[in-house]
This record gives sequence, C-alpha cells and structure tokens, in this order.
Amino acid sequence: MQTVIIGSGNVAYHMAKAFSLKNIPLAQIFGRNAEELKKISEELNIPYSTEHLEDADLYIICVSDNSVENVSGMITKKDCLVAHTSGSLPKEILSGEYRKSSFYPLQTFSKSKELDYEKIPFFIETENEKDKQLLFELASQISDNVMESSHEKRKYIHLTAVFACNFVNHLFARAKEVSDSQEIPFDYFLPLIDETVKKIHEIEPQEAQTGPAVRNDVRVLELHEQLLKDESLEIYKTMNHSIQKMYEL
Amino acid sequence: MQTVIIGSGNVAYHMAKAFSLKNIPLAQIFGRNAEELKKISEELNIPYSTEHLEDADLYIICVSDNSVENVSGMITKKDCLVAHTSGSLPKEILSGEYRKSSFYPLQTFSKSKELDYEKIPFFIETENEKDKQLLFELASQISDNVMESSHEKRKYIHLTAVFACNFVNHLFARAKEVSDSQEIPFDYFLPLIDETVKKIHEIEPQEAQTGPAVRNDVRVLELHEQLLKDESLEIYKTMNHSIQKMYEL
Repeated sequence: MQTVIIGSGNVAYHMAKAFSLKNIPLAQIFGRNAEELKKISEELNIPYSTEHLEDADLYIICVSDNSVENVSGMITKKDCLVAHTSGSLPKEILSGEYRKSSFYPLQTFSKSKELDYEKIPFFIETENEKDKQLLFELASQISDNVMESSHEKRKYIHLTAVFACNFVNHLFARAKEVSDSQEIPFDYFLPLIDETVKKIHEIEPQEAQTGPAVRNDVRVLELHEQLLKDESLEIYKTMNHSIQKMYEL
Repeated sequence: MQTVIIGSGNVAYHMAKAFSLKNIPLAQIFGRNAEELKKISEELNIPYSTEHLEDADLYIICVSDNSVENVSGMITKKDCLVAHTSGSLPKEILSGEYRKSSFYPLQTFSKSKELDYEKIPFFIETENEKDKQLLFELASQISDNVMESSHEKRKYIHLTAVFACNFVNHLFARAKEVSDSQEIPFDYFLPLIDETVKKIHEIEPQEAQTGPAVRNDVRVLELHEQLLKDESLEIYKTMNHSIQKMYEL
C-alpha cells in the first residue's frame, strides 16, 4: 500500500515519525513549506515534494482545520482513500471523488517533544467496512488504542480535550506569570502539578478538588483577587464561580 | 523534642504520616473530630485527644485557614514554637505569647491518595534564626526541598498553586462532564493529560500551547460554544479570550 502524508506541521511530523518507527513505508510527505518538509524528510528518510503529489492508495491530511477542504481538493485521483486528522471536521468536508474518512489521534503534538505513540487513542470513521478495516490495521500498528467514532462523538472528544489539555496548559502559562512576577522558580510547582494529574488516575476529579473556592474560604478568595488583574483576574473569578456552582456553595 | 500536630483533615493526616515514615516522634495529634483522629491514631500509632492538649516544644497547626486563629488561641504555653501550614496567612495570625512561624508544604493533599513526601517543597518563616534552623532540620528530614519564604512571597506561591492545581483539577471535572454527557470514557483522555503535563517539564507552557484558540480557528470556537452552556460555556469563553490576549491574536 502506498501512503502519502500531507502537511508539514506538528501532526504531520509526528504521524510520519510514528509510521517510520514501525517501518510502515511512506511514499511521500507533501506540503507547501519546503523548509519544514526538508527537515522531516531528512530526519525520517521520506521523499518530499511541494509540487507533485505522488500517486497513492491512502492520503492522510495533517493540516490545520481551515485548510483541510482546500488541500483535499488537490487530490484528483478517484480510486483511493483520503483521511483527515481533525477532531472537529466531518469527513464530508473532503472535496473529491475518492472514499472519505477520518483518522483522529487524541494527543497534543509539538515537534520538539517526543511522544509514546502506543498510548495515543485513534478514532476512525469511514464510508465502508473495508476502509474501516484498513485504517484499523494501520492505526493498530502504531497504537494499542484504536476505536471507531462518529463525527458527532468526535466533536465532543475534541471539546473535552480542549478543556483537559489546551486550557490546562494555558492555566500553567498564567500560573507561571504569577510566579515569574515574584521571581519564584516555576520548577517549585512541578511536583504539585504532577500530583494533581496522578490523583485523577485514582480519584474522580470532582472528588479530588481542593483549594479556597471549594472550602468557600472568602478571605483567601478576596485576598487573591487583590493580587490579580486583567485576564488572570477574569480566569480567577470564572473558575471559582464554576467550582462553587459545582459543589452548590 | 516534643511535637504535636493539631487538626484531623487532609494536611494533618499527611503531615503525621510524613513524620511517622521518618520515625520523627509525635507526642499527640489533637483536634475536634474524634472519629477522624481515632483513624489516624490507629493507622500511625500516635496518641490523640479532643480535650487535653499535650505539653510540647512545637505545635504544627493543620486546620483550615478560617480556624487557625481560634485554634492557635488554645495554646497557652509560652516557651514553645507554633507553626501554621497555611499558604495565605501571616504568622502573626497566631494568637498567643509563644514564638510564631509558618511551615507551608506546597502540595495537594487527599487522605485517599498516597504521596511522595520527599518531593514536596516546604516554605518556612520564623521570628528568629534558631527557630528557622529547627524547622529547616525538621522539614529536611521529610523533604529534599526546603526553603525560606516571607509571607508576601508565600501569598503568591499559594496563588500560583491555585491556578496550577485547583483550577486545573476543576478543568478536569468540567472536561469529564462533557465526555460523560456522550458516554465517552474519561480514561481516553489520560494519555493526553499526562502528555500535557510532561510537556511543561521540557518546554515553557507559553510555547507548548496548542488548540483552536491559539490557532485562531474561529469555526471550531463557534462550534464548541454551541455544544456548551452555563459555567462550562463561561469557562470556554474566558479561557479562549485569555489565550488570544496572551498571543495577541
């Protein structure tokens, strides 16, 4: 089977790398950004092009949501399978006469951070049983955790991930602003952060809640509000309000 | 040296346990809740009382911020050192004629979750050099990471911890509401959550940001808003606004 990956960003890089590590051949990695493609090509020993899209049986589109439709229109071949990797787009966004599918890896990808691909859940949606089998077999070579998912369900998976990953990371960034302002090394907080996450492997997050809001410690809440401003203050108020609503305080 | 722990909650339990594991003798654990005290007493083999406070050289008050002042007034002895464990209170809140101090462990404590005490940063503030040495030596038996901290700095350490721990946990709780609503097992998200935290051990959180807000993917942001309501919708809007402000989008 000939497979082509389209894109040169974080997802494209890690998909290509995951395939390479399992010796799954890639015919090409294709995209617009020659510089990034060249780097990936050299690291993983995969041919690349910015101009001529290689003939293949499977195209995996790893570009930002906004570009999926446009990029998918560049595939003029009919007898092939095309998958996008978006958490929120339907497979019907793909614009061509080929068979359409979704191949969604639930993970946060940065080029500079190595990943353990075996633990990444993959969610698959296809038009027919044969394509489903094909993508299941492919994903199962990379990951221990491959599932089917409708577009409807995938939207909620992606939304959950935004809360549990993107927003959590932003809280770390805002937390670091606070500690930086007092020249407190952010490293001090890593054991606390690690424990916060270890806890929810064992306890429901709702049970694990600690802090001034869930204790309804009004004195501390008011003190903290005086130390904050702008977006951090807005986050502080919104989160405490939500905590107090959840516990009916 | 005779040491007494006052309190029967999460912090009191873990302090008592940390001391016990290092064979640091505790004269008593004292509090109001006989049932909880009895459990801790039996597990750790420490005498307890709800009525008679034992004579000691050091009292460590592990009760909620609201109760610290009241509880500290019960210590009538003068020639002793009293420490509270609050992140936000000044040591002067302690009401008695003894020497006053702060002994703040930066961690999230739940009785049902075991902890690696060696990694917990301890922040210490005392009235004089001798007490500082005493608390440093004590804390150093438990932890590899003991530091001095003024009340002013401690307030910001606590505030940072609220963002990096309490609010992060609440995001997990709200995320789980979303996944529960579609009967998607929350376990699917644990590899993503683990990776989100592993990442910031290597990359600055501001560099590690991913997701629709930092990509300014307006289509996804609008789609997600339609899937949410009430507090979760408020969090969604507040966090995205804050992300976009941070990256000047």
